[in-house]
Amino acid sequence: MKILLLGGDGYCGWPTALYLSDKGHDVTVVDNLIRRKWDEELGTPTLTPIRSIAERIDAWEEVSGTRLALEIGDLQDWEFVSRIFTEHQPDAIVHYAEQRSAPYSMIDREHAVFTHQNNVIGNLNVLFAMKEHTPDAHLVKLGTMGEYGTPNIDIEEGYIDIEHNGRKDRLPYPKSPPSFYHLTKVHDSHNIHFACKIWKIRATDLNQGIVYGTITDQTERDERLVNRFDYEDVFGTVLNRFCVQAAVGHPLTVYGKGGQTRGFLDIRDTVRCIELACENPADPGEFRVFNQFTEQFSIAELADLVSEACGKIGMEVKIDRVDNPRVELEEHYFNAKHTALLDLGLEPHFLSESLLDSLVNIAVEYKDRVDQDLILPRVNWRRSSNSLQPAGAAA
Amino acid sequence: MKILLLGGDGYCGWPTALYLSDKGHDVTVVDNLIRRKWDEELGTPTLTPIRSIAERIDAWEEVSGTRLALEIGDLQDWEFVSRIFTEHQPDAIVHYAEQRSAPYSMIDREHAVFTHQNNVIGNLNVLFAMKEHTPDAHLVKLGTMGEYGTPNIDIEEGYIDIEHNGRKDRLPYPKSPPSFYHLTKVHDSHNIHFACKIWKIRATDLNQGIVYGTITDQTERDERLVNRFDYEDVFGTVLNRFCVQAAVGHPLTVYGKGGQTRGFLDIRDTVRCIELACENPADPGEFRVFNQFTEQFSIAELADLVSEACGKIGMEVKIDRVDNPRVELEEHYFNAKHTALLDLGLEPHFLSESLLDSLVNIAVEYKDRVDQDLILPRVNWRRSSNSLQPAGAAA
Repeated sequence: MKILLLGGDGYCGWPTALYLSDKGHDVTVVDNLIRRKWDEELGTPTLTPIRSIAERIDAWEEVSGTRLALEIGDLQDWEFVSRIFTEHQPDAIVHYAEQRSAPYSMIDREHAVFTHQNNVIGNLNVLFAMKEHTPDAHLVKLGTMGEYGTPNIDIEEGYIDIEHNGRKDRLPYPKSPPSFYHLTKVHDSHNIHFACKIWKIRATDLNQGIVYGTITDQTERDERLVNRFDYEDVFGTVLNRFCVQAAVGHPLTVYGKGGQTRGFLDIRDTVRCIELACENPADPGEFRVFNQFTEQFSIAELADLVSEACGKIGMEVKIDRVDNPRVELEEHYFNAKHTALLDLGLEPHFLSESLLDSLVNIAVEYKDRVDQDLILPRVNWRRSSNSLQPAGAAA
Repeated sequence: MKILLLGGDGYCGWPTALYLSDKGHDVTVVDNLIRRKWDEELGTPTLTPIRSIAERIDAWEEVSGTRLALEIGDLQDWEFVSRIFTEHQPDAIVHYAEQRSAPYSMIDREHAVFTHQNNVIGNLNVLFAMKEHTPDAHLVKLGTMGEYGTPNIDIEEGYIDIEHNGRKDRLPYPKSPPSFYHLTKVHDSHNIHFACKIWKIRATDLNQGIVYGTITDQTERDERLVNRFDYEDVFGTVLNRFCVQAAVGHPLTVYGKGGQTRGFLDIRDTVRCIELACENPADPGEFRVFNQFTEQFSIAELADLVSEACGKIGMEVKIDRVDNPRVELEEHYFNAKHTALLDLGLEPHFLSESLLDSLVNIAVEYKDRVDQDLILPRVNWRRSSNSLQPAGAAA
């Protein structure tokens, strides 16, 4: 299958590119490399020393005998988007190429606007390119479980059957996104759903949970294939951050009461879910939604799990409650359905089995590269303008 | 009350500015005058010969003794937005300043992207300006009934109580918008809702029905105050278009089966609804949603009403079914609630009483200005790129 992998240099995109290539698909990595520029802007380097995209691609060719095609460009640039769709004629488009940090989108007006421009306009260009150049292709778009917010009823996969005043309909599940970033994913979902309706495009919206881990079967074949691992306050996801905190002897920072419950998955399941979606495309005109996560935990439970696992190897871990920089419920009902991908054949990696192997060990291995000034939250949802000076530094 | 009237030169904005000024409010018209440029781009002049914004404002001062303040600028320009909020310190912001035509947004990629940029980014700038400069002000934002689509259950005002698997919550009403334009309004609604949550902004989202008519008590005081009246395929709303067709002896063009049912209101009710929203502001942090229309009709019913009314004054009217250029249900359930504004004191003008007086007469008065080449639909939802050559012209 010919696959355009939009955002193929990123945290999820890179291991997905390797995985799909390893499975025999013809993969073109498309990326504007902006994630690397954000590292410079925010002073937030990946824990693991990732190589340039050129070195990565050379290394994969050496290891696998297969060369990934590469297109460097921006999805906001219609000329670029139109050309790559015309030239590569993909069967599937895997679309990760969005600004994916909630705190980044909440820094200030410029970052909120940028996140909208980058994500929403880029995604519109993808939809128009599909309609004009590859109308039978299948869009596999990364959304997020965060789009749903924390309703007091069960979260379904994209749609909900509503009975109201004696009548019934199946409607898009109501969304209550908790950041400008999450809002852009909701906007994308609405736009894609509409494109499916009017142009009979095929699309699968994957509402992904919080991803943890960094190693996959492919990235561990060569040190030059190492994936990025973000632990800081802006791009670091919570479980990765906890493991790094544990490794350097910093207390785990739980925001507020810690009852915030979310869906999680191992990055090895992320790559498999993408494969399952690609191999089982949506029908023409179908806007299909899967919830892509394997287990749900509260933040406090996660802190306890990390503390317990570290205890087994003699690492002592403290847990600190810090003021919650976000506006969110800290105690709430959360029960999200996630059977569609299991039905397609997903066999999950569970956290209890991989916590030490694939998380804590990475953090310990690279702990000398940790900058502890980057651990405490710097972006507060209640402000409309946040300074990104390290928390302890003078303004 | 100090009111910033964003989009104050437009079809709804201009009569609202006059009405609020007449009621003693201190009104600043904010507009980039782009609606006038679109007339040139599309070759779609208003039926009524509107005056320049400077002449309009001078005329209103002559007639009323009150001068409207004027700020010419674009909401996408943050420097401009920030300055006008700082200088005018509004109590209320009435926000009409968006690209409001569904067909315009569906012309091609450029117009879809422009509509997103203009509407979504402009609205984000308004939210940030409120947070930074006037955090206690009240946003009165124009949304559209079209955001809801045509669900098979009753449409509520913004929220719906859902009981699901034995649990309950009140959630945002699920939206199924039928064009890129409508999508941007849905995006705005989500963004405003979020800003209310995190920053405790006050906001009222007015999901307006299709507006008809052009005359208000204020615009008819002087011929130079005349409001615009759009009858063509891109900016003309259906009832205005039918009246113009009747006036020039063109058959009324019903798209498809004509069972498409929508909410409608007289422009004199639009201006009153805005006043009611301003005078009864939402609470801090409240995202309040009103459905702003007074009656619902199917398109076929409207055609019959126009035909019947015209018959009374000896005008013979034919009705033609034309291929539906839109992707929409042509027969469907539609029952939308609209009691909130009535509860605040709205006393509707009903179509049956005003059809001849305030619609057909205007069309007849200006019928020599009608360009019949602009009446048939030129924008087809199923295409991603539409030529705006008049339907009869060579490409």
